[in-house]
Amino acid sequence: MTQGMRELRKDPVTSRWVIISTERSRRPQDFDPEYDHFKGFDPARDPFAGGNEHLTPPEIYAVRSSGLKPNEPGWRVRVIPNKYPALRIEGDLNPRGYGLYDRMNGVGAHEVIIESPESMMLLADLPLTHLTEVIYTYQQRIRDLSQDKRFAYVLVFKNHGRSAGASLRHSHSQVIATPIVPKRVIEELQGAQAHWRIKRRSIFTDIVDQELLMQERLVYENEFVLAFCPFASTFPFEIHILPKQLKADFRRANSEELKALSEALKACLLKWRGALGETPYNFLLRTAPNDTPLSGIYEAFPYLEAYYCWHLEMFPRLTKTAGFEWGTGYYINPTPAEEAAAFLRKVEVNIS
Amino acid sequence: MTQGMRELRKDPVTSRWVIISTERSRRPQDFDPEYDHFKGFDPARDPFAGGNEHLTPPEIYAVRSSGLKPNEPGWRVRVIPNKYPALRIEGDLNPRGYGLYDRMNGVGAHEVIIESPESMMLLADLPLTHLTEVIYTYQQRIRDLSQDKRFAYVLVFKNHGRSAGASLRHSHSQVIATPIVPKRVIEELQGAQAHWRIKRRSIFTDIVDQELLMQERLVYENEFVLAFCPFASTFPFEIHILPKQLKADFRRANSEELKALSEALKACLLKWRGALGETPYNFLLRTAPNDTPLSGIYEAFPYLEAYYCWHLEMFPRLTKTAGFEWGTGYYINPTPAEEAAAFLRKVEVNIS
Repeated sequence: MTQGMRELRKDPVTSRWVIISTERSRRPQDFDPEYDHFKGFDPARDPFAGGNEHLTPPEIYAVRSSGLKPNEPGWRVRVIPNKYPALRIEGDLNPRGYGLYDRMNGVGAHEVIIESPESMMLLADLPLTHLTEVIYTYQQRIRDLSQDKRFAYVLVFKNHGRSAGASLRHSHSQVIATPIVPKRVIEELQGAQAHWRIKRRSIFTDIVDQELLMQERLVYENEFVLAFCPFASTFPFEIHILPKQLKADFRRANSEELKALSEALKACLLKWRGALGETPYNFLLRTAPNDTPLSGIYEAFPYLEAYYCWHLEMFPRLTKTAGFEWGTGYYINPTPAEEAAAFLRKVEVNIS
Repeated sequence: MTQGMRELRKDPVTSRWVIISTERSRRPQDFDPEYDHFKGFDPARDPFAGGNEHLTPPEIYAVRSSGLKPNEPGWRVRVIPNKYPALRIEGDLNPRGYGLYDRMNGVGAHEVIIESPESMMLLADLPLTHLTEVIYTYQQRIRDLSQDKRFAYVLVFKNHGRSAGASLRHSHSQVIATPIVPKRVIEELQGAQAHWRIKRRSIFTDIVDQELLMQERLVYENEFVLAFCPFASTFPFEIHILPKQLKADFRRANSEELKALSEALKACLLKWRGALGETPYNFLLRTAPNDTPLSGIYEAFPYLEAYYCWHLEMFPRLTKTAGFEWGTGYYINPTPAEEAAAFLRKVEVNIS
């Protein structure tokens, strides 16, 4: 769809991959660190609004009542390719050396999930049935993209507010499928595997049990999931949502679990708003990597179904990361999880 | 000096430590994501200004002409304890369990290096001799703090501008000594060790050779150091400064190398300003961990002097990190290193 350079480069010291994607700003004058918060947003020209379907690339997927046509109004959730994708869907990886260094083509998928046709609607304000359709769409996109054997991982995430990285006002989530399993996912798998080797239990099951036992970090609970501020929260008011029944792969979550996740997500978003005001935030959905020869992940973690578990991590953007966090990989959090959870438990919300 | 909770907590899945430090903002109303850029800064009440020494805790170290007294005007560089330290200098670690979880006391050092007595002076504008005194002060603080056997690592870093995490206008750097070796440092050591085991060469020496050979990513070079945009730059216009002679420990850098580092740093800061305007930025100085029984680092990396190398990493804050970066640990950079370096090479600067 769009041209420009898309390349994956590997840091020779830390083995961290970086995506070089020159689609947008690249020259000095293109950066404006002080740019206003969605200055001059005009709903009439909003490409994500219902009725403006012609302003976007053709849709990949949508939730709409039967009898209605694709790329026409009437949808409730709509998925389109990202117009400025970080990774490009066409082509092969073609990994190669460059002197000392390693690189490969920036192949992957980058999609936008428009959560509602209404320009000013926020995810937290969607009716529960509609929010459940958004969550269901997450699952559908992961299922579909994970069939492409070039992709080792499918990540769903959301940036809300400019200081959380959103570049458009209209509420949306994103899906990125990558040819490599993300470092953070590997770290989780390694930690969970180490625990399982000693205990023959899942660390995630142990966390569920511990949080239900102690109660002090719990924010919300229903029959199928619990939401809590994690013991070692990286950010103030961070929340994790975990299913009570261990399932490595979010693709296997059933409709009851999807509805329960939607309820918990809505409750937590509204509790944040009650405690913090309308705050910028990110969330991301963690699930097991794809089983592809390329990822090699099921060679390294052959029993991951026994110890890994999908979950949702959400955090408001209240603190700034700076030299210390970058230099160490460690974070300074001013709000202990127990205090944050106590504040959030007190906020009453209506999640219908 | 100050009270409040300071605790290190370990994430049970990823083993990432988080510092819980409740000194400042902790309750919902204490966060203000939209706070202005140093609104109402008044140099007369600047606690870091020359003449206002009584507004800070007593100094730990200073560079001043002989005959002048501590905590009185006449200093050029001054080091004081951070008034709101992330870690507390007193006490023992006392590591212990808490149900499933691990925690220990938040013991460490957190100091502020005031780079000049002038309120409005910026680091890039210091005369070279003065800037070299700042760099020399970095080395002195690392030397001093690394004698405390409770500390496994000493990190010097700088946050410039509010969106880079600075909370005060007056130009300053920071030093944090931590009881654990930061994850990012371990990752560098692991990568360098793996390279050394295969090649019996340092990856850092190989990078120096590669960059001098290819030239396309070079930004600045003098007799003792080179500054270049790293091949897998995480951020647009990121620069690394490496010494030409491999030395694991910055404490062993000699006066010629310190002066050469100052020259390169000043050149790069001025080149950034010429290309990007006055931009928020971070830099951090990487050096070998302390040799303490606690860190265990010289057990795991017994020959690190043969393959590790101190260096300075600097990056402007032009892009925002969002859900993708947090979810993956991978970054999207819109500006290839070769393009950034070409822009920066063109900017002419005066570093006297």
